[in-house]
Amino acid sequence: MTVSRKIRVGVNGYGVIGKRVALAIGRQNDMELRGVADITADWRLRLAVHQGVRLYGATTEDARAMEAANLKLEGGLDELIADCDVVVDCTPKGVGARNAPTYRAQNRPFVLQGGEAHAVAGHSFVAEANYVEAIDRAATRVVSCNTTSIVRTLTALKRAGLLRRARGTLLRRATDPWESDRGGIMNTLVPEPAIPSHQGPDARSVDPDLDVVTMAVKVPETLGHLHYWSVQMTRDASKEEVLEAFGTSPRIAYIRTADGLGAINAVKELMADLGRPHGDLYEVALWTDMLRVQGDELFYAYMVDNQAIVIPETIDAIRALAGGTRDGAASILQTNASLGIGPFDFLRAGDDPAP
Amino acid sequence: MTVSRKIRVGVNGYGVIGKRVALAIGRQNDMELRGVADITADWRLRLAVHQGVRLYGATTEDARAMEAANLKLEGGLDELIADCDVVVDCTPKGVGARNAPTYRAQNRPFVLQGGEAHAVAGHSFVAEANYVEAIDRAATRVVSCNTTSIVRTLTALKRAGLLRRARGTLLRRATDPWESDRGGIMNTLVPEPAIPSHQGPDARSVDPDLDVVTMAVKVPETLGHLHYWSVQMTRDASKEEVLEAFGTSPRIAYIRTADGLGAINAVKELMADLGRPHGDLYEVALWTDMLRVQGDELFYAYMVDNQAIVIPETIDAIRALAGGTRDGAASILQTNASLGIGPFDFLRAGDDPAP
Amino acid sequence: MTVSRKIRVGVNGYGVIGKRVALAIGRQNDMELRGVADITADWRLRLAVHQGVRLYGATTEDARAMEAANLKLEGGLDELIADCDVVVDCTPKGVGARNAPTYRAQNRPFVLQGGEAHAVAGHSFVAEANYVEAIDRAATRVVSCNTTSIVRTLTALKRAGLLRRARGTLLRRATDPWESDRGGIMNTLVPEPAIPSHQGPDARSVDPDLDVVTMAVKVPETLGHLHYWSVQMTRDASKEEVLEAFGTSPRIAYIRTADGLGAINAVKELMADLGRPHGDLYEVALWTDMLRVQGDELFYAYMVDNQAIVIPETIDAIRALAGGTRDGAASILQTNASLGIGPFDFLRAGDDPAP
Amino acid sequence: MTVSRKIRVGVNGYGVIGKRVALAIGRQNDMELRGVADITADWRLRLAVHQGVRLYGATTEDARAMEAANLKLEGGLDELIADCDVVVDCTPKGVGARNAPTYRAQNRPFVLQGGEAHAVAGHSFVAEANYVEAIDRAATRVVSCNTTSIVRTLTALKRAGLLRRARGTLLRRATDPWESDRGGIMNTLVPEPAIPSHQGPDARSVDPDLDVVTMAVKVPETLGHLHYWSVQMTRDASKEEVLEAFGTSPRIAYIRTADGLGAINAVKELMADLGRPHGDLYEVALWTDMLRVQGDELFYAYMVDNQAIVIPETIDAIRALAGGTRDGAASILQTNASLGIGPFDFLRAGDDPAP
Repeated sequence: MTVSRKIRVGVNGYGVIGKRVALAIGRQNDMELRGVADITADWRLRLAVHQGVRLYGATTEDARAMEAANLKLEGGLDELIADCDVVVDCTPKGVGARNAPTYRAQNRPFVLQGGEAHAVAGHSFVAEANYVEAIDRAATRVVSCNTTSIVRTLTALKRAGLLRRARGTLLRRATDPWESDRGGIMNTLVPEPAIPSHQGPDARSVDPDLDVVTMAVKVPETLGHLHYWSVQMTRDASKEEVLEAFGTSPRIAYIRTADGLGAINAVKELMADLGRPHGDLYEVALWTDMLRVQGDELFYAYMVDNQAIVIPETIDAIRALAGGTRDGAASILQTNASLGIGPFDFLRAGDDPAP
Repeated sequence: MTVSRKIRVGVNGYGVIGKRVALAIGRQNDMELRGVADITADWRLRLAVHQGVRLYGATTEDARAMEAANLKLEGGLDELIADCDVVVDCTPKGVGARNAPTYRAQNRPFVLQGGEAHAVAGHSFVAEANYVEAIDRAATRVVSCNTTSIVRTLTALKRAGLLRRARGTLLRRATDPWESDRGGIMNTLVPEPAIPSHQGPDARSVDPDLDVVTMAVKVPETLGHLHYWSVQMTRDASKEEVLEAFGTSPRIAYIRTADGLGAINAVKELMADLGRPHGDLYEVALWTDMLRVQGDELFYAYMVDNQAIVIPETIDAIRALAGGTRDGAASILQTNASLGIGPFDFLRAGDDPAP
Repeated sequence: MTVSRKIRVGVNGYGVIGKRVALAIGRQNDMELRGVADITADWRLRLAVHQGVRLYGATTEDARAMEAANLKLEGGLDELIADCDVVVDCTPKGVGARNAPTYRAQNRPFVLQGGEAHAVAGHSFVAEANYVEAIDRAATRVVSCNTTSIVRTLTALKRAGLLRRARGTLLRRATDPWESDRGGIMNTLVPEPAIPSHQGPDARSVDPDLDVVTMAVKVPETLGHLHYWSVQMTRDASKEEVLEAFGTSPRIAYIRTADGLGAINAVKELMADLGRPHGDLYEVALWTDMLRVQGDELFYAYMVDNQAIVIPETIDAIRALAGGTRDGAASILQTNASLGIGPFDFLRAGDDPAP
Repeated sequence: MTVSRKIRVGVNGYGVIGKRVALAIGRQNDMELRGVADITADWRLRLAVHQGVRLYGATTEDARAMEAANLKLEGGLDELIADCDVVVDCTPKGVGARNAPTYRAQNRPFVLQGGEAHAVAGHSFVAEANYVEAIDRAATRVVSCNTTSIVRTLTALKRAGLLRRARGTLLRRATDPWESDRGGIMNTLVPEPAIPSHQGPDARSVDPDLDVVTMAVKVPETLGHLHYWSVQMTRDASKEEVLEAFGTSPRIAYIRTADGLGAINAVKELMADLGRPHGDLYEVALWTDMLRVQGDELFYAYMVDNQAIVIPETIDAIRALAGGTRDGAASILQTNASLGIGPFDFLRAGDDPAP
């Protein structure tokens, strides 16, 4: 894709998601990271400045504290916004809703993350499902990690005419590695108190036609989520048909327990071996040898990297808001290429029966 | 119940299950623990002897080593068998199958545990489902912890005419506390490589009519299993009807997240506070405020204590094999009373809406 | 011991420590539990009432909420205090300091736990070190779990004239099983930010002569603490002399890795097998086959059950404050007998070389 | 450094260490990775081939199986050896000893890892301690991760004339992330059965003058080791003197809890944010604000990344064996530059009091 001018992007909030978004923007040839806003002065921001990131104070008060701690600031949030075509809000849950009026006041399109309610942006985004809807909007919301994976997979089944209804059990990592020294769970399992959990309704904020119910439970690990699905299909289908359906998504990657990838730590090791930053898994990693079709019923499991899966979606959302391209498939291809997203074909030998 | 003579029981294998079975036998007024056979000489056996358990060597070779380690033996396995009316085999998976011919040769009825295949005993046992079938048999197999919970719950739904088909996701504790210093998993999730997992077919070894499919995953904790179910009912039903159905099982106990029992560690703490040995949970602990009915669909979750749930079943199985009573409900009541099994009514205040 | 009248005890705070203290009081033939005060209405208090404990509201406001939740109260904290000879405060850290004036105002001797500062009670207590000092005092403080173990062990070495100085590394369990569904650490290690950690100075609140420095780190498990010590002795000594010194403490119990007790989960399993409530380990469990003497240096490790070790100390503290006996050794013996505390001699065969 | 010809290196064993060594060789401008030998055909080797690594079968039998699995091999181990100037053996513990005669038979210098005994190579290596000794030797052994950190730190104190004797407690990660789906420990602590643990004597294989005793314990995490030290210095010293001493090592990096780096997960996050492959920490990460001097005693703690710390040492060992440079400091500088090893100065603001 050729662009006359790069999309200028600011990132508000430099945490688990924000820092990954910033890094990914740096890999886009049609985008430019103008700067990052935050409120703390700890090592993460010092490293960012050391790495050449332009830093802004997200609030006047915090800016003062950051400068008192000898952090060099380029200005305040308003100045960052003014300097950008699109703002990506990666602040903690609920803060994005408070920031939205600020972005709107300066007339800058903005991307929210899944911690915010659908209503704040008025639109919920998964690139493969509804990229085109977001074009030229004032705002969109990249849905949460769990919801993103649900929409990717169920949309693929729906496109193939196979989806009637889906019932899922979601094992959620209890906390991120970064904050695993506080607030975690130990040697226990903590069910979400309510069934259905919120992810099902959340998926319908992207596609209201999905018949999906989820149950969720926190598990004592930090690597990512694991989803188990029981799907009622519209008809009897073969395993091949199902895999072909999932295969139409460029962000679902196939793995096999038979290749030694029988646990989520192994999948993360594979990502690190691939040289991905932070060992990030952007794809839904779906086990093909575990997947089972039984008449008109389908059972499968996949891994979701909660720190990474929304990163390519956010890049596409930026591009859609900025009108960088009106072709969702083109944006997805471009983002995928920049981040090395794609099928793990190297896992198969030449004559290996697919997949 | 009055018995002319107590049922004399021997336990072969004094591990996680064996020691609990031995303790539970000691609480039955119609049973007598004649002794325990094992193959090791470590602290567990020393403590057993210290606590008055009569110890036998399970093999000639091991017996020699045990005596060399100054453990006092009453004799070999054959002598224990000869001294018993019923033998309970609690040896590791697969060893029970090798022991079965020995028990048969001495014409002693025996109970196997769920690690053995159905065919070894020719009968699979869950007290509430098929106590009467086991009466006067030569052998029966108490099914595994997971399968026991599945049969208890689905049989209750079936009795109420509500069960069409059940699809479950089983989170399995990775190892027992006793052996958590080796062989565990850490900060990962390990799916069973095959879907369906074996528990569904195993449940059908007790009741071939059950339409049940399970998917299973090992999770990094040691406290017990957690099951999530999505059930297609035969018709629309109310939550009250469903709870009434489960309520007919004397070994399903209701808990609520709203009472502070929102995680499996809390349930275990409750068991310890109840003064139960090892903090054992013999019941299926089912969350009533999490349970959800949606038309003809039912969703719920419960906890299974893999070390404890089969203990009352084993006691009933002994009684059935020995013909202690021909009335399954009576045996269950007697076992429950001896072990303190029953509804957790104390969790509710007087006018607390049930349950 | 014969007592004319039982010591009437009230327990304020029915958490991890409070419920254990209440249970232990019930096992003393010279004490009577008059009641328990707390501020919540969850399952733990419901169970207490169900088990016959007389419940009081610790504050007027909380009492109202508890009664609104249908919990039957006998009255408020003042009424419990008035009904008691001694009050044991087991409230969370810092609350005891706020409660102290209330106890003093009613002229009731009280025992604080180790979360409070030494100054609040003006005296810090470990039975083997200074029982006699606490007799007839208005208040004493049972020091924390870690400090209790340090004083027990170092006092034993000091009594034998062997202790010059001790340097310890303390691995602290990150959270209790009861609250492991929140606030834990996962797959990480969290050093105490300051060296020395507070336990060294805290030990000197009991015995100012101890030359002890500690470093501490939170580790991701819930079972208990593990201490490693490097001790400079006053002279070259033999391993036998050291074991003889530790052996003079009736609350240090010897274990061996060679007996299969090579990890703290195994020690906890042993406690559960002993039938102890909650699987509690009241003793310092010290590995004799790991202990090493090298000239005038001594190296050893032991396990501390943070939920249990202070329970016998608290019982002794009650007895000292109430003047139940003026003989510390007699109180210790009586408490030990009531709780089953003692050497694990059953671990050794008859001719097993000690220890 | 200018080299006429690159040092040609082969790596035998492509596991946790082998793959990191291979990657690091690729970053040296005076070395060339000729190929890798292994015995398995799983995804790790497929990825290696995909990434352009030349693969060899380590045994004839395994080579056959690898080719049957459609892995393209360049030949057998002998052919790899013949093609190299230096071989690095990264096979599992004990296999290196069996391979040594093969390397010797072909007259190729080789580097062993710390799992092998000192005697197999006849020399044990830590670059800062004894680089020069290894020049032109037939073999050397890079000592284990724990021992490497001990030698780095104690050698620094010794150089400054401060070291009398050191007593350490080593918390060892229980298993590597890669294999955390098997063989781990859960919710427990597992002390090494023997005191002293082997690391102290192992450090003396590099420097026989070190007076060091270690005690070790396995802890349930996968990120790395944590060492606590209590050092008797030769004299009273200031904290500044101690930090100056440690500061002479280019592979000890200073961190502070006050900067938000108060736990080992935070240190690993910093490494990932630095863009290091696998988030590797090559340095000993030592907390300066935790370090405490008390008269002639010194107390401190540091983190060791067991997967990474030996990688730069191995690079230096290759260079020494091959005579790439006879100047150890120059080799260390070169290796450090290639891997981004160095002080974390960016953590401090301009006028931040050091360190």
